[in-house]
Amino acid sequence: MKQYRVLIDAHDEKGLVYKVSSIFYKFNLNILSNHEFVDKVNNKFFMRSVVVGDVSEIELYEALTEVLPKKANINVITPKKKNIILMATKESHALGDILMRYEADELDANILAVISNYDDLRDLVERFGITYHHVFHEGLDRAEHENKVLELLAQFEDIDYVVLAKYMRILTPRFVEEYNNKIINIHHSFLPAFIGANPYKQAYDRGVKIIGATAHFVNNNLDEGPIIAQDIRHIDHAFDWKDMQRLGKDVEKIVLSRALKLALEDRIFVYANKTVIF
Amino acid sequence: MKQYRVLIDAHDEKGLVYKVSSIFYKFNLNILSNHEFVDKVNNKFFMRSVVVGDVSEIELYEALTEVLPKKANINVITPKKKNIILMATKESHALGDILMRYEADELDANILAVISNYDDLRDLVERFGITYHHVFHEGLDRAEHENKVLELLAQFEDIDYVVLAKYMRILTPRFVEEYNNKIINIHHSFLPAFIGANPYKQAYDRGVKIIGATAHFVNNNLDEGPIIAQDIRHIDHAFDWKDMQRLGKDVEKIVLSRALKLALEDRIFVYANKTVIF
Amino acid sequence: MKQYRVLIDAHDEKGLVYKVSSIFYKFNLNILSNHEFVDKVNNKFFMRSVVVGDVSEIELYEALTEVLPKKANINVITPKKKNIILMATKESHALGDILMRYEADELDANILAVISNYDDLRDLVERFGITYHHVFHEGLDRAEHENKVLELLAQFEDIDYVVLAKYMRILTPRFVEEYNNKIINIHHSFLPAFIGANPYKQAYDRGVKIIGATAHFVNNNLDEGPIIAQDIRHIDHAFDWKDMQRLGKDVEKIVLSRALKLALEDRIFVYANKTVIF
Amino acid sequence: MKQYRVLIDAHDEKGLVYKVSSIFYKFNLNILSNHEFVDKVNNKFFMRSVVVGDVSEIELYEALTEVLPKKANINVITPKKKNIILMATKESHALGDILMRYEADELDANILAVISNYDDLRDLVERFGITYHHVFHEGLDRAEHENKVLELLAQFEDIDYVVLAKYMRILTPRFVEEYNNKIINIHHSFLPAFIGANPYKQAYDRGVKIIGATAHFVNNNLDEGPIIAQDIRHIDHAFDWKDMQRLGKDVEKIVLSRALKLALEDRIFVYANKTVIF
Repeated sequence: MKQYRVLIDAHDEKGLVYKVSSIFYKFNLNILSNHEFVDKVNNKFFMRSVVVGDVSEIELYEALTEVLPKKANINVITPKKKNIILMATKESHALGDILMRYEADELDANILAVISNYDDLRDLVERFGITYHHVFHEGLDRAEHENKVLELLAQFEDIDYVVLAKYMRILTPRFVEEYNNKIINIHHSFLPAFIGANPYKQAYDRGVKIIGATAHFVNNNLDEGPIIAQDIRHIDHAFDWKDMQRLGKDVEKIVLSRALKLALEDRIFVYANKTVIF
Repeated sequence: MKQYRVLIDAHDEKGLVYKVSSIFYKFNLNILSNHEFVDKVNNKFFMRSVVVGDVSEIELYEALTEVLPKKANINVITPKKKNIILMATKESHALGDILMRYEADELDANILAVISNYDDLRDLVERFGITYHHVFHEGLDRAEHENKVLELLAQFEDIDYVVLAKYMRILTPRFVEEYNNKIINIHHSFLPAFIGANPYKQAYDRGVKIIGATAHFVNNNLDEGPIIAQDIRHIDHAFDWKDMQRLGKDVEKIVLSRALKLALEDRIFVYANKTVIF
Repeated sequence: MKQYRVLIDAHDEKGLVYKVSSIFYKFNLNILSNHEFVDKVNNKFFMRSVVVGDVSEIELYEALTEVLPKKANINVITPKKKNIILMATKESHALGDILMRYEADELDANILAVISNYDDLRDLVERFGITYHHVFHEGLDRAEHENKVLELLAQFEDIDYVVLAKYMRILTPRFVEEYNNKIINIHHSFLPAFIGANPYKQAYDRGVKIIGATAHFVNNNLDEGPIIAQDIRHIDHAFDWKDMQRLGKDVEKIVLSRALKLALEDRIFVYANKTVIF
Repeated sequence: MKQYRVLIDAHDEKGLVYKVSSIFYKFNLNILSNHEFVDKVNNKFFMRSVVVGDVSEIELYEALTEVLPKKANINVITPKKKNIILMATKESHALGDILMRYEADELDANILAVISNYDDLRDLVERFGITYHHVFHEGLDRAEHENKVLELLAQFEDIDYVVLAKYMRILTPRFVEEYNNKIINIHHSFLPAFIGANPYKQAYDRGVKIIGATAHFVNNNLDEGPIIAQDIRHIDHAFDWKDMQRLGKDVEKIVLSRALKLALEDRIFVYANKTVIF
């Protein structure tokens, strides 16, 4: 008995659920969970099913291809540990939260390596038996530094996700394109408020009563990629921006880990600069 | 073109989604939304679909009956305003919130009447053009008073829901049976904490840092019916129980109105003393 | 025995708490509650005390004036119902929430009148025994219309707060100056995200996973006045902007009513485009 | 210049703030923050001030003693790292969260040791340079096992707090008395709901729509000690109790770490089985 995650998105039309479920029925598959959504504005259909049964991945894929519209995107995925790269700078809270879940075997992923533009986190990372790469940025321009990172990444096969666990450098379009919808970032504000640098400082200056964090896929517009998860904490006037930052770290790490979990479980569709999450 | 809400629950078995969607396909219906859930512990299947097309309610029902297991519960519902009775005692916040939504035409319901064991809220209710029935309880035992309420209710045809908007009397099993899974109550605590009288007083004495409210269907065990919706507010030591009560009212009214909305939109399945909500 | 709310803000220096409390002690006052805050960035001291005892307002004020720095702002307030004007457009949820609290005698205010640029809400408002003024804006430019509103407001003595309960017109600097820090607005987004028109539409387009509402004092920069209260609700991809709007109304009305309560209880200090709230 | 945290609680009477602040003024101290609260039910006064200046701890203490009522509790605390013992069983999330904060130097504490009734977490703990004590419980009755733990604890001087980071054994009254108001536990439910074993299982069976976690001081009644912090997450019918447990871990660890931070900063007063937290 095998288990598959079947992800389908297509231009909406009548009969899609019927067609997909008829294939499941034909192969005598048991549906463990099933989610559908139709975006009526864009006339777009999304479906994610988890099925169990006795059929090969390729058979199932081909059968679905046959009944579904030509332009439908069909993914038949055998659940397995995904390969991820973590990138960080100096702060350890978001990275550490992921490392702890990894240690507890609660993260469905192989951490291939941690890459940082500083050496500060090496000791922590290596304790978890994970390779740490310090890629210097001093004396290099953005492109030069990033080339070194990209060269390093190129040595790994099958990177499923690059997780920016408080990696404090902006990626160039080249990087983003190469890992399209594979780079997950945590931004330390409730986007789209406080885009850019020092969001807690900005929040302090604005006198907000709530701070937040946003996990999103990275695209070419700073902090404007598709949002995966957000959460907030209430604050009051007694919080200076350092207090906000301290409290904010707890939100950041939980939101990033939640977004990563959703990605590892193949629950996210990206389209129109948004996400559909089942 | 007609719209239907199709609600199905059944013992789980393979092919249910296929069978239902094949009927939708056969009748050329457009699926506006579709939700399924399988409770693996109880092996129970739940499905709610909203479909649009050119078929009669009875045709659709019969076609589904034909393909689904004999014991399946099948509901084909034409969306329309449901008939509700509101019951209250002296407090106006929960009742008032529903009245305001009614006034704004945001409540998909006809309010047949408001019934109270006091006369305090008459003036408010009548301003909204709604009949107010004061059913005395002074000098009557519980059964006697309730009989008067039941007699009054019996005069209304087709009551879909009885909404206890802070009705501060306990219903007898007879009442509960007569309106099984049709009575929605708001309890002013985060159930199952603080069952019974004076939950804010209990919460104060316990020194909790959070208060809550719970909307639930009423069954024969006090405050133990199937939960529909819950929400909370953070508090601190400076809240005495009157402060908790004041803050709690905001939670209560929103939670009750949310639960009522879910019921009016036929989104709730009840089973095993729980709810499945799509 | 009289009760006073004493509000003091001043440039911070040593001994302020001592000086204030020495006056309370001298007059044999009982302190019911006491809050202080020092903004270290601006070196600003804030204090709010509620005291009970046998002293006149003027005596207490003068005694405090004597011991405190010349530039200190000192307010000795006898708690009483404040006078408020409500302004609305067509939507009733925020206005209605305030009316219901008023009806339940939970609002420490006299509602002098409701002013709207439409006539839609007249019937609702008049049911509560409150005067409704419809000030047309059709065919008038912003200044002309606002002059009519200002003329109307000028007829009321002692307006403590003007509450914009979803009043959908922008006020001119003249209006704002005349009622400086007295105008409370509810903006239907988590500011500073989605400033301006149609925030729910903006939020939908951005694909956020949280929506919010912000109550703030109005200043001359649109949606940039000092924030009083904010709250949020989690949403998902299935919310279109109408759904967001519907859910958002519940947040808006609760946040506005909370902000109004804080104002009516003299709990808010405004400075540096922020609020300190005790 | 020295900094002190001054914590005072006493039977309430007039002039307490005056008397305390007169001492601060006399010693020319700068007040960094100041919080007071009067519990009117118990007629109890609480005050926490952070002051900076040139005075010795003993001088300040004695001056306060002189002016305050005899029965007042007065604590003048020089901020420094507190000594803590962590106790755990097999789960790593709560423990790991504290270790990570310790590593990042965000925890104002020395971790003297980790004690567990299993050996599972040894490797993780030792990576952080912390001593791990495995105290077997197999074949021992509760008292025997606890004696071994108490003997071990007796070897450490000046334990400020014992933190039960998911330590899954019930402590005897003897243990609790010995570390009165020094033992912080995290209970994996929103207390007082779901006291006792398997709260997530209980929550699943009850069909709640919210799960929570509660950090509290341990007293002799299981899960009934003074509550320090609580938080919640919304869930729906699709969560089985394993899912609740998984999600719950995120709440548990954050709530425990928050409670520990409050304790380490001397922000908590305990009385009447409750906490006052500044």
